Amino acid sequence: MFSLLINKDKGFFDMFEKSASNAAAGAKALVDLMDSYPAALAEKVKVIKDIEHQGDLITHQTIEMLNKTFVTPIDREDIHELTTKLDDILDLMDGASGRLAIYKIGAVTPEAKSFAGLLVRATDIIAQAVACLRRLNNCKEVNGYFVEIHTIENEGDQLFRRAMVNLFAGRDPINLIKWKEVYYDLETATDRCEDVANAIEGIIMKYA
Amino acid sequence: MFSLLINKDKGFFDMFEKSASNAAAGAKALVDLMDSYPAALAEKVKVIKDIEHQGDLITHQTIEMLNKTFVTPIDREDIHELTTKLDDILDLMDGASGRLAIYKIGAVTPEAKSFAGLLVRATDIIAQAVACLRRLNNCKEVNGYFVEIHTIENEGDQLFRRAMVNLFAGRDPINLIKWKEVYYDLETATDRCEDVANAIEGIIMKYA
Amino acid sequence: MFSLLINKDKGFFDMFEKSASNAAAGAKALVDLMDSYPAALAEKVKVIKDIEHQGDLITHQTIEMLNKTFVTPIDREDIHELTTKLDDILDLMDGASGRLAIYKIGAVTPEAKSFAGLLVRATDIIAQAVACLRRLNNCKEVNGYFVEIHTIENEGDQLFRRAMVNLFAGRDPINLIKWKEVYYDLETATDRCEDVANAIEGIIMKYA
Repeated sequence: MFSLLINKDKGFFDMFEKSASNAAAGAKALVDLMDSYPAALAEKVKVIKDIEHQGDLITHQTIEMLNKTFVTPIDREDIHELTTKLDDILDLMDGASGRLAIYKIGAVTPEAKSFAGLLVRATDIIAQAVACLRRLNNCKEVNGYFVEIHTIENEGDQLFRRAMVNLFAGRDPINLIKWKEVYYDLETATDRCEDVANAIEGIIMKYA
Repeated sequence: MFSLLINKDKGFFDMFEKSASNAAAGAKALVDLMDSYPAALAEKVKVIKDIEHQGDLITHQTIEMLNKTFVTPIDREDIHELTTKLDDILDLMDGASGRLAIYKIGAVTPEAKSFAGLLVRATDIIAQAVACLRRLNNCKEVNGYFVEIHTIENEGDQLFRRAMVNLFAGRDPINLIKWKEVYYDLETATDRCEDVANAIEGIIMKYA
Repeated sequence: MFSLLINKDKGFFDMFEKSASNAAAGAKALVDLMDSYPAALAEKVKVIKDIEHQGDLITHQTIEMLNKTFVTPIDREDIHELTTKLDDILDLMDGASGRLAIYKIGAVTPEAKSFAGLLVRATDIIAQAVACLRRLNNCKEVNGYFVEIHTIENEGDQLFRRAMVNLFAGRDPINLIKWKEVYYDLETATDRCEDVANAIEGIIMKYA
């Protein structure tokens, strides 16, 4: 019985790590899509969509595990928040890539490419920070991860602001509408990375 | 005292069922509004607004009941989530119908009518699934409801995508802005139906 | 030990009051920005941004206190909700003021000024209602605050509707996009004031 509980505990950390590395794979696929844009667009959008479906599956399994586990290694609400926010990162990257295709956008902007680069950095750090949850008392480097995530989110804010100024200086309203939504998804994805970092920080403060 | 608790238990299920059948009434009123559009628009918008107010009242009473009940038949957070998401469905249908009037939209699109039809199907199934919560161990048909809701949500995604492609192919940016918001409300309403189904599924997994 | 607990209890109420009076300061700064618009716009946007940063700090400290406190004076989830919604009010006012500058909006509308006025009234009442949490059994005037907040939220709804009708009657889509977002922030800020009032009402019902 005791080993069963231990196994279950390990299960949640496994799921968080799977979800975070899946988000990192999504960010890399987004960079790939943007670097070769619009070559093989439909295929590259589908790669991200498949990763996002994978993420849905991981999230669903985590929630199922949560509903079936009586004693959880960390608070239930923290497990729920962490898994949901991790899932959001991929949903938003998938949203951005889907919009490029649906809106038939002809070329990607430098700001969009910069966002994809930020998301690779952010999700890589999230993957490392999530791995700290397994060894709460033995992860001194985690504070460095939090600082880095806040830096990235700040860069994302400034990038979004610059993108908006450029966009509203244009004269094509339909183009404006299209890009506003793509940028919104990309910027919210970086915000969700910060939310995940804040959730991890909260858990560490409670248990360390 | 014991019968008081039993009564209170029953109270929550009564409220969920009221809320779900109210959402179903809203969906039917939305179909009616769209089928005769724009005849009697102001009156038909008001019918939906009244149903939405009714929904607010049900939600408010449920939260009040929750705050006053010490022992709840299912977890407090599940009651809160279920009642909030049920309320969201109506809020979004009311939002869509209100926008048609505020934006002075002249005619409804086939995609909008299809969304209203999807919402009738989804809210009918939600009403049946909610009724299962009363008899957790004796509701085998519920899995069929979940499958059906996911199918509808999937149809809603595809419908939204098709509507967006058509919309962005047009050349009238103001029309684009108006319809984008109407479609967003309609699509989010179908998403909320799926959220309600997921919440019910979570509760059933915990207690069955 | 007991006095330590008492001190901690008092701490949360201190934080709520700080956050509410900070939101009220933000609303007053927003009125000031609009009344003299566009004079000294960059400086006045920065005043609100600084107040918003202050709000982030208060929120962060409250969450940290929550994570470190074992026995809380009111339910953990209520503390979390109240502090988050209070923070949202300022975020949205900051969002609205930032957009005026980013979108290079030349003049503010009468509806925008009316919204800023509503937000001053709403945040003043919120500040008074929050102060009631300290003396749950001795705050009869609180029901009057709730009525007033609902009245203001209702005025906000009507104002938003009027602003939208005027906006969509125009022929400039880029102007439409800009103002739709500013109004959305302002209207959502009044909604969050109502959310805060509802959260306070819920807490009072539980404990009074």
